[in-house]
Amino acid sequence: MTARPVVIAPSILSADFAKLGEEVRAVAAAGGDWIHLDVMDGHFVPNITFGPPVIAALRKHTDKPFDCHLMIEPCDPYLEAFARAGADGITVHAEATRHLDRSLQTIRELGKKAGVALNPATPESAIAYVLDRLDLILVMTVNPGFGGQKFIPATLDKIRRIRTMIGDRPIRIEVDGGIAPDTAPLVVAAGADALVAGSAVFKGGPESYAANIEAIRESLTANRAG
Amino acid sequence: MTARPVVIAPSILSADFAKLGEEVRAVAAAGGDWIHLDVMDGHFVPNITFGPPVIAALRKHTDKPFDCHLMIEPCDPYLEAFARAGADGITVHAEATRHLDRSLQTIRELGKKAGVALNPATPESAIAYVLDRLDLILVMTVNPGFGGQKFIPATLDKIRRIRTMIGDRPIRIEVDGGIAPDTAPLVVAAGADALVAGSAVFKGGPESYAANIEAIRESLTANRAG
Amino acid sequence: MTARPVVIAPSILSADFAKLGEEVRAVAAAGGDWIHLDVMDGHFVPNITFGPPVIAALRKHTDKPFDCHLMIEPCDPYLEAFARAGADGITVHAEATRHLDRSLQTIRELGKKAGVALNPATPESAIAYVLDRLDLILVMTVNPGFGGQKFIPATLDKIRRIRTMIGDRPIRIEVDGGIAPDTAPLVVAAGADALVAGSAVFKGGPESYAANIEAIRESLTANRAG
Amino acid sequence: MTARPVVIAPSILSADFAKLGEEVRAVAAAGGDWIHLDVMDGHFVPNITFGPPVIAALRKHTDKPFDCHLMIEPCDPYLEAFARAGADGITVHAEATRHLDRSLQTIRELGKKAGVALNPATPESAIAYVLDRLDLILVMTVNPGFGGQKFIPATLDKIRRIRTMIGDRPIRIEVDGGIAPDTAPLVVAAGADALVAGSAVFKGGPESYAANIEAIRESLTANRAG
Amino acid sequence: MTARPVVIAPSILSADFAKLGEEVRAVAAAGGDWIHLDVMDGHFVPNITFGPPVIAALRKHTDKPFDCHLMIEPCDPYLEAFARAGADGITVHAEATRHLDRSLQTIRELGKKAGVALNPATPESAIAYVLDRLDLILVMTVNPGFGGQKFIPATLDKIRRIRTMIGDRPIRIEVDGGIAPDTAPLVVAAGADALVAGSAVFKGGPESYAANIEAIRESLTANRAG
Amino acid sequence: MTARPVVIAPSILSADFAKLGEEVRAVAAAGGDWIHLDVMDGHFVPNITFGPPVIAALRKHTDKPFDCHLMIEPCDPYLEAFARAGADGITVHAEATRHLDRSLQTIRELGKKAGVALNPATPESAIAYVLDRLDLILVMTVNPGFGGQKFIPATLDKIRRIRTMIGDRPIRIEVDGGIAPDTAPLVVAAGADALVAGSAVFKGGPESYAANIEAIRESLTANRAG
Repeated sequence: MTARPVVIAPSILSADFAKLGEEVRAVAAAGGDWIHLDVMDGHFVPNITFGPPVIAALRKHTDKPFDCHLMIEPCDPYLEAFARAGADGITVHAEATRHLDRSLQTIRELGKKAGVALNPATPESAIAYVLDRLDLILVMTVNPGFGGQKFIPATLDKIRRIRTMIGDRPIRIEVDGGIAPDTAPLVVAAGADALVAGSAVFKGGPESYAANIEAIRESLTANRAG
Repeated sequence: MTARPVVIAPSILSADFAKLGEEVRAVAAAGGDWIHLDVMDGHFVPNITFGPPVIAALRKHTDKPFDCHLMIEPCDPYLEAFARAGADGITVHAEATRHLDRSLQTIRELGKKAGVALNPATPESAIAYVLDRLDLILVMTVNPGFGGQKFIPATLDKIRRIRTMIGDRPIRIEVDGGIAPDTAPLVVAAGADALVAGSAVFKGGPESYAANIEAIRESLTANRAG
Repeated sequence: MTARPVVIAPSILSADFAKLGEEVRAVAAAGGDWIHLDVMDGHFVPNITFGPPVIAALRKHTDKPFDCHLMIEPCDPYLEAFARAGADGITVHAEATRHLDRSLQTIRELGKKAGVALNPATPESAIAYVLDRLDLILVMTVNPGFGGQKFIPATLDKIRRIRTMIGDRPIRIEVDGGIAPDTAPLVVAAGADALVAGSAVFKGGPESYAANIEAIRESLTANRAG
Repeated sequence: MTARPVVIAPSILSADFAKLGEEVRAVAAAGGDWIHLDVMDGHFVPNITFGPPVIAALRKHTDKPFDCHLMIEPCDPYLEAFARAGADGITVHAEATRHLDRSLQTIRELGKKAGVALNPATPESAIAYVLDRLDLILVMTVNPGFGGQKFIPATLDKIRRIRTMIGDRPIRIEVDGGIAPDTAPLVVAAGADALVAGSAVFKGGPESYAANIEAIRESLTANRAG
Repeated sequence: MTARPVVIAPSILSADFAKLGEEVRAVAAAGGDWIHLDVMDGHFVPNITFGPPVIAALRKHTDKPFDCHLMIEPCDPYLEAFARAGADGITVHAEATRHLDRSLQTIRELGKKAGVALNPATPESAIAYVLDRLDLILVMTVNPGFGGQKFIPATLDKIRRIRTMIGDRPIRIEVDGGIAPDTAPLVVAAGADALVAGSAVFKGGPESYAANIEAIRESLTANRAG
Repeated sequence: MTARPVVIAPSILSADFAKLGEEVRAVAAAGGDWIHLDVMDGHFVPNITFGPPVIAALRKHTDKPFDCHLMIEPCDPYLEAFARAGADGITVHAEATRHLDRSLQTIRELGKKAGVALNPATPESAIAYVLDRLDLILVMTVNPGFGGQKFIPATLDKIRRIRTMIGDRPIRIEVDGGIAPDTAPLVVAAGADALVAGSAVFKGGPESYAANIEAIRESLTANRAG
């Protein structure tokens, strides 16, 4: 599956929250493939960002896939609200549900792509029996909750093991945390094919978005060439 | 204290979440006195709206007081984050803390106005012993969680009793839920002097905000004249 | 409202759980007015009894009103399940919900009679602002969780105050706990007009149910005559 | 250990809850080996079924072993109540206790068979260090909470790995969810030797129970013959 | 009941935790009437102090009554452990239990004095229906969790109302927080007859304990003389 | 790393809580290397022992490292309090935090040694991705909560696997539960190099501490000699 082009998913956690519609249009125009939406409830993680009403408001600003990362616990009572708000993919944390198989089934029954996220310390054994339910595995490369953290190298091994584990299933491996032109080639070499990027995309303001995204893509090509 | 002019606090729960900075500037320019910020965590109430990062982003768009209504539980771990994000007043729910006196002390130690909110069913006895800690009492006139609900008439009695209870202390009585030109005179007559208004302000889009706010103020004058 | 005949509601907590259909038919035939269903989840109270599937199974055995007493927390996620299972009335505990007004609204929107229960220590101020939402107030005269407990006399004062508080609203006052021919006249004199009875009805087996129910009714008449 | 005859454990989740005593006698007479009792508390799973009082009432209707599956969290406070109610085996969920080793020790100290259940997504590594405490491992082949769900094929691998893991320890491997004559041979071939069956046993009413159970047993023989 | 001599209960929260046995003997010898034991679990209050094993160790150092103040939630699972550890009185918080009447019954069934504590914001209506179960009402005059806080004057009114409410029942009113010779006369005049004192007793070390306790007693006499 | 001398860490859970300062000095003088402090909150484990104020009081009685074992949940809100109280190492339970990597980072940012504890049933896969964050791995050889329990042999395999897993990282493997001269050689042979000992050290009173500690050390030498 590694032949699929690598997806770049700008995370609006690093955008200007005062003009999110404009930001979403800007990163879409600048070449972002998906819009990554970091939902935090102040319980699963020690921060509160935004929820369904914000996503619903953004939905009319782009046709790009909305990649919703739910850092909330419990997640089941809100899956339908996120689907109705306009999510294309819904990713839940393995640590946030007692019934991961059911949560993933529910997401698919809602007609959405089903993803599971793993905190840095969570082993891949947590998802060994739900591979048939998955469209995406999100490997957290920092601890979720805040932007601007430093990439954790120990996660590279986990990405490699997950790549092996999924075999030829059409499951994306997405990474989130500290992704920039210096780390992007490492995670892609390990097996990732979807990259969430926050500050690396949004730094410098709207006029830099296209260049920032291009720099990440370029780092991948350079790496392969090497 | 009823001599103080009645405050109108537009609630951004009814604004366009895709351009909140612009919305905040618009309602400020249209005559809104405070900006009411409805924070929901998906635990105290069955909805997730937004938290500190959104408030911090809006802070640079207006000098109007930020009136933060925390529909979150527990509230204590987040009081400092909301103060740093730019809140001028922080209102916690009586139902969401075991130690209401401490939460209110903390808010004042952070240099902010301290408020307490009461759900529709919560009796005013819940705040009888913290009146010396309070700058604002928020009487919910609908159940918190969603915009566009119908005003609950039984809350008028509660407003009256609280007005009597606070005596000549300089505490605002704010109401939130179903406030519009038809209900505003009723709650002000009962003793309220700060009105949160969502759809009644934001309906019709930015060009209507000034007229919408004026209509609410007008309803109060008309009522007094009568 | 005290002119309404007093309702006797046999509680199946004291029935034989191995043949509930038969028991329900028997107490219905013996003159029970409502069937009182004690739902416990092991969290709000330290016992687990039964839930929606049991109620659904019993529904076909009688047309008598199903008076469902939810000793569960939270209650909101299960209201619809109990309505679908066949409840006619749904009573939630004031101590088990942060948003009592909303829970009661939901029950009525489901087309059911809305009730609120108060633990022995809970003051009636907890319901002062939801009287317009109520069809029934259940005053617990023992601590919920187990059958066969001793009636708590301090609850008589509470019944009296609630009777005064509700005025001429058509709200039933139901009592639950230790009700038998010796206590029934006391609670009715205080203002109750619906009596849950467990062991006082079910003792002696099916052939005694009619006499047991009659003994309770008789105690009321005797009392009034006196 | 696979030489032990396969146990059939009818689950009363599919029985008529209005006459459980009769149902239990009927499936016992029809050849059910154990009575499987699905306890749900509305917290660990999104359904409430029944608890100790129901089990105690059923105890006098059969001598067959009561195989109690606790879908409750926490489980420790209720272990003694289930033992006293008449359980022969008590199975707790690995996901529902922080101290699995202690829960299992407690069950054995109560003189009961100790079991652990694994949700579909839970890896077998969760029980690697408690094998010496176990009489039974319950592999959930659907997500717990409701009857009538579809068997999840990914669980077959887990059964195989557990069979290898337990070596020659006298531990039963039980499966629960979607078991019928088409799936029974698969799970037995993978290593299961106790089969919970709900609708596959109870469909068609009491006169079909014996044939239904026989059909499951037959499917196993046929399979081996094949 | 105000004729009873006022009890002084030194709180070991201000003692030297490295030599609690010695401290307990010292304050007992210095004239402390009861030993007040502040149990905190880090959940009901944001601090962890000590629990049953510490109390059991202290039991052999004095015959003075152990007045155990449980700042823990839930409290019911630990009542027996505190009784066995050597408590003479057990006080639970009204805010920490859904079933206050049951908790108090349990304490008395364990043969101990039953008390209830009220946080500064909690109204006395919380205990109106459990007066028959009570030996002691603890009015918190600071927010529980830490020593050395400032007395909250609004609590004086609450003490007065409780004194009236209890009538001639033999219930002690105890106060805890900021009690010293300047505040002691105020709370006693309001109706308190048991005073918890921490730093006011333990300041200056063991050789000052007798004088410190005497100073508090003296303040009461002086006050009455005046 | 096994060349490092084995550390003996007396656990004050078995000391006399009435004179902890003296006990700490005594075991330090008797040759204890670290002081093991068992913090329990009544939520993660069913017992409450002590917290930061007790540790702060003990700090002045010895310079030996304070090895703080937090049996509390959640742990993150209290890490700073334990660091300030005087902990040298802080060990959190893998089962008590959703964000183990973050908790460990926080401990190191506080300048303390970071440890993680595993309950008897918890597999070592729980820590595979945080090895770079760790100074100590605490393998529970009994279920945490009480002293005086029996060593669980199944934990020996876990110790061996962890020893292999950590390779040449300078991480201590500590064991806690049932450690005495008969079990100490077994766990050291399996790879442990820090031994918590409670009753095996404190039995017989202060005059026996040196001999008790020596007996444990002796058992290790004897074993190697053998």
